Amino acid sequence: MATRPKGRTIDRRNREPEILAAAIEVFHKKGYAAASLRDVADIVGVLKGSLYHYISSKEELLARICVESHKQSSMIMQESLDSADTPLDQLRTFLHKTAIWYLTNIERVHIYFNEGKWLTGDRLEEVRTQGREFHAFIRSLIDRARSEDRIRTDVDPRVAAQLIIGALNNISTWYRPDGLYSPEEIAGIYTDMTLASLANPVPGLVSA
Amino acid sequence: MATRPKGRTIDRRNREPEILAAAIEVFHKKGYAAASLRDVADIVGVLKGSLYHYISSKEELLARICVESHKQSSMIMQESLDSADTPLDQLRTFLHKTAIWYLTNIERVHIYFNEGKWLTGDRLEEVRTQGREFHAFIRSLIDRARSEDRIRTDVDPRVAAQLIIGALNNISTWYRPDGLYSPEEIAGIYTDMTLASLANPVPGLVSA
Repeated sequence: MATRPKGRTIDRRNREPEILAAAIEVFHKKGYAAASLRDVADIVGVLKGSLYHYISSKEELLARICVESHKQSSMIMQESLDSADTPLDQLRTFLHKTAIWYLTNIERVHIYFNEGKWLTGDRLEEVRTQGREFHAFIRSLIDRARSEDRIRTDVDPRVAAQLIIGALNNISTWYRPDGLYSPEEIAGIYTDMTLASLANPVPGLVSA
Repeated sequence: MATRPKGRTIDRRNREPEILAAAIEVFHKKGYAAASLRDVADIVGVLKGSLYHYISSKEELLARICVESHKQSSMIMQESLDSADTPLDQLRTFLHKTAIWYLTNIERVHIYFNEGKWLTGDRLEEVRTQGREFHAFIRSLIDRARSEDRIRTDVDPRVAAQLIIGALNNISTWYRPDGLYSPEEIAGIYTDMTLASLANPVPGLVSA
């Protein structure tokens, strides 16, 4: 930037991505309730007041983290529908891609599930709506797979979706990036086990 | 109690169960960090000072809740081993009984998983040890089932145990006692899906 005019003091970079990354770091480390905008500003290396060019409050930061996470999830939904013709293969793709995204964005996912509760009003409602969409997407694929006789009919799609999402959401609490397995490997095991959990027969019931 | 000697002012009942129940109620409603011993005393209907006959601190209350929960879990482990001869049937019994216990003790389970982190020192270490025991028990049954060719060999017992526990632990976040299903029904679906997830061929891989 040798040609930059001398005397310019305003930093015109868009620091929003940096600010969001810093907020993720701080909210994950301290918890949202204990974290302050000053903590975020310190990491970015700006004065706290400069943050207000980008966001109006700590809650807005949390909301943006949650909204961005859900956008990612919506993209994966669309990719999954485009990737295959059968609901079971679409479900496989969705769960596999989502698990990898979770495993490579553990801090963000942890905030989404553990700190999202601090949002208020319309923002809280939006995150709840997102959760319902996520659930409805999985449930609808299970429903269609069931009507095509690809999975057991005794599986209730609503309960199955909750259990499948439960195992997925919980991954961010136990996965260690420095452990034995890569995100792809964990995602593969999770997806295989989940698909098998929907298929016939239930072992003990027929062979025990 | 018409024959009770007159003038007795000391209440000789053991109020510990009441105190623990009140603590569960308060910690669940307010969160451990925001709850106070005064809140607990108010529910029991005693002065805060009276609690010190039974416990030395708020942290001790939380520790007792966690230790009691784990005792329950240890009993279920023993019952499961006694209930069947094969590891897969023992696992079925363990998961089924544990899920029912979770579903009928949602507040307690919620505290165990979400507030246990506030424990310190030896108490925190104890809860962590309990978590490892729980995991090791499930893993060992999967290990044995695998060596007896009852489940797929491509299932890694450590990762499988984490995923199975993840779905289980997460149940307390979505189950509604006033919903469509009883604890027994949810436990049945969870157990069936879990056993199938270990034993069944993975559908897409063989038929898609």
